[in-house]
Amino acid sequence: MTTKDTVIDLYPSRVEAQPRILERKDPVVYPNDFEGPLTKEDLSAYDADGYLFAEAFFTEEETAALQNELRRLLAESRGVRKPEIILEPEGDEVRSIFAVHRDNGLFRALSEHPKLVSAVRQILGSDVYVHQSRINFKPGFKGKEFQWHSDFETWHTEDGMPRMRALSCSIALSDNYPFNGPLMVIPGSHRHFVACVGETPENNYESSLRRQVFGVPDEGSLTWLVERSRIEQPAGRAGSIVFFDCNIMHGSNSNITPYPRSNAFFVYNSVENKLQAPFASQRPRPDYIATRE
Amino acid sequence: MTTKDTVIDLYPSRVEAQPRILERKDPVVYPNDFEGPLTKEDLSAYDADGYLFAEAFFTEEETAALQNELRRLLAESRGVRKPEIILEPEGDEVRSIFAVHRDNGLFRALSEHPKLVSAVRQILGSDVYVHQSRINFKPGFKGKEFQWHSDFETWHTEDGMPRMRALSCSIALSDNYPFNGPLMVIPGSHRHFVACVGETPENNYESSLRRQVFGVPDEGSLTWLVERSRIEQPAGRAGSIVFFDCNIMHGSNSNITPYPRSNAFFVYNSVENKLQAPFASQRPRPDYIATRE
Repeated sequence: MTTKDTVIDLYPSRVEAQPRILERKDPVVYPNDFEGPLTKEDLSAYDADGYLFAEAFFTEEETAALQNELRRLLAESRGVRKPEIILEPEGDEVRSIFAVHRDNGLFRALSEHPKLVSAVRQILGSDVYVHQSRINFKPGFKGKEFQWHSDFETWHTEDGMPRMRALSCSIALSDNYPFNGPLMVIPGSHRHFVACVGETPENNYESSLRRQVFGVPDEGSLTWLVERSRIEQPAGRAGSIVFFDCNIMHGSNSNITPYPRSNAFFVYNSVENKLQAPFASQRPRPDYIATRE
Repeated sequence: MTTKDTVIDLYPSRVEAQPRILERKDPVVYPNDFEGPLTKEDLSAYDADGYLFAEAFFTEEETAALQNELRRLLAESRGVRKPEIILEPEGDEVRSIFAVHRDNGLFRALSEHPKLVSAVRQILGSDVYVHQSRINFKPGFKGKEFQWHSDFETWHTEDGMPRMRALSCSIALSDNYPFNGPLMVIPGSHRHFVACVGETPENNYESSLRRQVFGVPDEGSLTWLVERSRIEQPAGRAGSIVFFDCNIMHGSNSNITPYPRSNAFFVYNSVENKLQAPFASQRPRPDYIATRE
């Protein structure tokens, strides 16, 4: 671990003029004895692919309650302007609502769900906390792309997350199909860090959450990753979950179908991996995007 | 059949202020005794669904020759400005090349391929001619959506095609995946005609081939069609083919993957269904978009 006194940047990005692919310097599954719902096979699949998909991780009752709350929250948020509510790049449709683990009772309870948290601990090998939470809506007809990216690249450069010891859970709250813009991942890409070019502009997050421009990997690196692997769409029904490593390359296509795509999104970070000063940005992002407590 | 003297518009569109869904007034498979590669089961599936998918319709040698010619044609077309070459909405990537059955030897031969033409005759029940041809390139990383549409809506309003007695063949010249923006269809939608709102602006085709704005069905009608059916992605490997009815509702999502998606596209019209004056447009579109001979 680096400390505040001796900060070594193991994953420099947005500092050079040319993109570069670096090897990962951290474990994927951290050795531990935590008990939880994941089997040995689950953990080795996660280690190899960088993600794990589980159908019906939550019960039908739990899922229905979350869907109701999601609908209520979406209706309540229409027309409201506050930083936590992000709109689609074109138009006024709500794209994401951040900090739901802080602001909403039911989603806070979900972020503390014992089955969920113990699975996360099995992977990260320590106690964990919520680094970021949000609900994503990909509306029918006009949901836009999320360009390919590694979350860690942003959390490292803009939030000061030192090591790769964090993961995301995407909990499906509507049925995913191959054609309504589901999550796409490049299995194995979590073992490579694509250093991106360009400097981070001040307050980049204000526009990057609508459409990302900085911290976007170059087409050459993406092709390199896909050529060595493949693309998968771990798309499931409402109530399913995808756990994915903080550094796996992922993105999603647009959605012109009438089927909206909604999910709840929690990022857990290890308590051993506390945030420091951002590695390539003037100021850390606000707390509703990256918990710094 | 209507004639030049007594033109009755069975499928009015772009004339009313409200969208409307009309029933189809024409057969899908026209009764006939033509011999060809399609079985009775193929023909009833086409009748019910409005499309038919066949893997490996062309041999590997034929497919390889077409792929080579496609690459040559794409390279040759870069930077060339002529009406037949359509660019992506944003940027200078080639999106389509029209009239390849007229301008290119190999694609002309493909449009006259006996297996292909006899299959088309089995469906349309008459001799046929090429109404339109093109090659589509959906480049990797930045291929944009094709919004949902019925081809017939445009051919009727802008080209003066009187009846639904035409079909398209999409011949895959690269491997299609669920995630690189393949064709999506709504099975059964070919039995309904969605009359669109708004008037056609003059020379609409000059922009509509890049991004369609007029003749776009409304979200209510699309939801109505999908609720009564489903969405399918008849995506196959290079050398596969999709035959689809002129009035089936179809579209495609964007493509952020590195895999480009290319196909050859032929529209065949029955010789009994000759073009007339456009039903909702000032002037017919030029010959490279709609053969009028």
